[in-house]
Amino acid sequence: MKILVINCGSSSLKYQLIDMYNESILAQGSIERIGIEGSNLTQKVDGREKYILNKQMRNHKDAIALTLEVLVSPENGVIKSMEEIIAVGHRVVHGGEKYSDAVLIDDNVKAYIKKCYKVAPLHNPPNMIGIEACEEFMKDTPMVAVFDTAFHQTMDETAFLYAIPYELYKNNGIRKYGFHGTSHMYVAQKCAEIMEKNIGTLKIITCHLGNGASLCAVKNGKSFDTTMGFTPLDGLVMGTRSGSIDPAIPQYLMTELKYTADEVNELLNKKSGVLGLSGVSSDFRDIETAAENGDERAKIALAVYSYKIKKEIGSYIAAMGGIDAIVFTAGVGENGPNTRIRSLAGLEFLGIKIDYEKNNVYGELREISTDDSKVKIFVIPTNEELVIARQTKNLI
Amino acid sequence: MKILVINCGSSSLKYQLIDMYNESILAQGSIERIGIEGSNLTQKVDGREKYILNKQMRNHKDAIALTLEVLVSPENGVIKSMEEIIAVGHRVVHGGEKYSDAVLIDDNVKAYIKKCYKVAPLHNPPNMIGIEACEEFMKDTPMVAVFDTAFHQTMDETAFLYAIPYELYKNNGIRKYGFHGTSHMYVAQKCAEIMEKNIGTLKIITCHLGNGASLCAVKNGKSFDTTMGFTPLDGLVMGTRSGSIDPAIPQYLMTELKYTADEVNELLNKKSGVLGLSGVSSDFRDIETAAENGDERAKIALAVYSYKIKKEIGSYIAAMGGIDAIVFTAGVGENGPNTRIRSLAGLEFLGIKIDYEKNNVYGELREISTDDSKVKIFVIPTNEELVIARQTKNLI
Repeated sequence: MKILVINCGSSSLKYQLIDMYNESILAQGSIERIGIEGSNLTQKVDGREKYILNKQMRNHKDAIALTLEVLVSPENGVIKSMEEIIAVGHRVVHGGEKYSDAVLIDDNVKAYIKKCYKVAPLHNPPNMIGIEACEEFMKDTPMVAVFDTAFHQTMDETAFLYAIPYELYKNNGIRKYGFHGTSHMYVAQKCAEIMEKNIGTLKIITCHLGNGASLCAVKNGKSFDTTMGFTPLDGLVMGTRSGSIDPAIPQYLMTELKYTADEVNELLNKKSGVLGLSGVSSDFRDIETAAENGDERAKIALAVYSYKIKKEIGSYIAAMGGIDAIVFTAGVGENGPNTRIRSLAGLEFLGIKIDYEKNNVYGELREISTDDSKVKIFVIPTNEELVIARQTKNLI
Repeated sequence: MKILVINCGSSSLKYQLIDMYNESILAQGSIERIGIEGSNLTQKVDGREKYILNKQMRNHKDAIALTLEVLVSPENGVIKSMEEIIAVGHRVVHGGEKYSDAVLIDDNVKAYIKKCYKVAPLHNPPNMIGIEACEEFMKDTPMVAVFDTAFHQTMDETAFLYAIPYELYKNNGIRKYGFHGTSHMYVAQKCAEIMEKNIGTLKIITCHLGNGASLCAVKNGKSFDTTMGFTPLDGLVMGTRSGSIDPAIPQYLMTELKYTADEVNELLNKKSGVLGLSGVSSDFRDIETAAENGDERAKIALAVYSYKIKKEIGSYIAAMGGIDAIVFTAGVGENGPNTRIRSLAGLEFLGIKIDYEKNNVYGELREISTDDSKVKIFVIPTNEELVIARQTKNLI
């Protein structure tokens, strides 16, 4: 029972082929620079050498074709024929207000995903291209859409409305949606499992800290609030994204400093965050090294990054009326012991105590709170692909 | 020892004449619609009927001239001659990074206030017009500038930097400045006084909830963080201002919904906040009435407003590493018992317990926490004019 998981970006594609019998990854790969000169595919299979193929791909259809070709190839493949793939699970960023769960893709679903282009102009179109390309090559294979926004559909109006004219919500869909839902859900459930508690009784804050970063207040197993908003630009400081800033700043950049709208977008999405503050890199390893070598701006970038996380943690503790556990996940969350320490420093009075020894962990599941910490703290590696595969399996 | 306090807006002017001998208000007045048809002056003097004068004023110079004329007039005035005014204290919104305190106005100060036009294009120019008009009529009277931003100059980089390219801070001054500083300082000091504690040992959150609204984390007597940012648009939900929203929304309104930059400004500053959400009014009394009559949007507006305050309180408790007292001040803060209840609901686990009986207070100083509340909660009427007068007196 093999499920293919597809995640299409604007010029990239990631895939995993998972055997659901034991949830083992048969192959995982990525394609970069689709439609750009120098496109290439990289595939990893356990026990084999990494396979790299440089081949020009004009579009996502080419990329899907090549993916399938490699998966079934006698030398580098892992299956004999495409018929072994019983379903494809697609990551789709935006499911609007309609989908609070994964869904089997049909014409109605595709129409709604396209309707969401207006609120996710950068994300849903490439996701859709991936779906349509797969449909072409795998006519009878069921396709499932798993939405980044779905988990957050439990937020209530108090949490998701912006204080702008209500008509902009009703008529134009401008509200907080939240993203990384699949990841927040997965690690929250895992957290309850480890704690051997019913998730329906727990108040958990999940910190997904990767290139993008968001926090989620998971109350009684449901997303209660989250830091990303109408778009994935809002909330925490990120690698290259500003996160939340005074909403007058974009206007100021345009009217006073003569930026164009595109330049403002570029600035806030690609040149801001810890990259913009440090001037060093968007990669935390580089910034930590620079900070250790005395680079003042690198130190400031790290401090601002963690301060914002700490404040949002405080904010969600207040919002939920308490806290049982905090989970760190994704690139920086799993591999940034210093970030974890900085983000929780000074919260001991709330019963949040990190154990410096246990915290010395990279990319593996571990409880990192002290024995007397009232609040449990965990590192839990996220696995969005597995969740997508599981939800796909459940639907077919 | 009489001091005149002047607060110039774009088309308005407020003034108070204060006798510093006993800090009593001799006269207070306001002028509306300066430079617009129908301009008028209203003056209140204790024990007299309100005096209203309809008279066309072309500009702030006319308005200052009329103010002085009324103050010395035999029928409606309160002093015999302008010489009795020993100094004028001007509210100036933006003191940039230079002024962390009030300052005696000279050519250098005026030049710096003008330099700050670029970061406060809506606020500093009318303040400056007020200063120059006063100088013309009161050539030998010392003038003092008291800045809204001054109190917040103690914030450190971690709190005041946005995660945008550092050069935009260094070269263009884009950072968090914070506003309402005079008010936050005044009520925090009053709070310490009532608690009979040294403010240098206290962690206080001051909630200035008026037409504009901001929270301040006052740690050891200093502004540690505050919700308003580069401009007074950021942070809390306000009467007509959105507060913090996804910074992608202004761009989205322009590119997808074809708003102009001016329309976005107008929307976020004048048509948002509780007005935009409720569709009823920016006045909390109207919204509360509508909510009591079952208006769903009015209920939502109130809920969103308070939820944001609650989250920011949690955030500052985490940021400061604890909390000793919470203060409510300004229009809604002083006169909104329901807002106070909603904003603190569910925070009992943090030792924050409001006493419903004591909370039934409007516009007067009172402790409103329960006897067993670990955190003290107060209503403290603000008095920015008195602080301006005191700081003016101290400087001359």
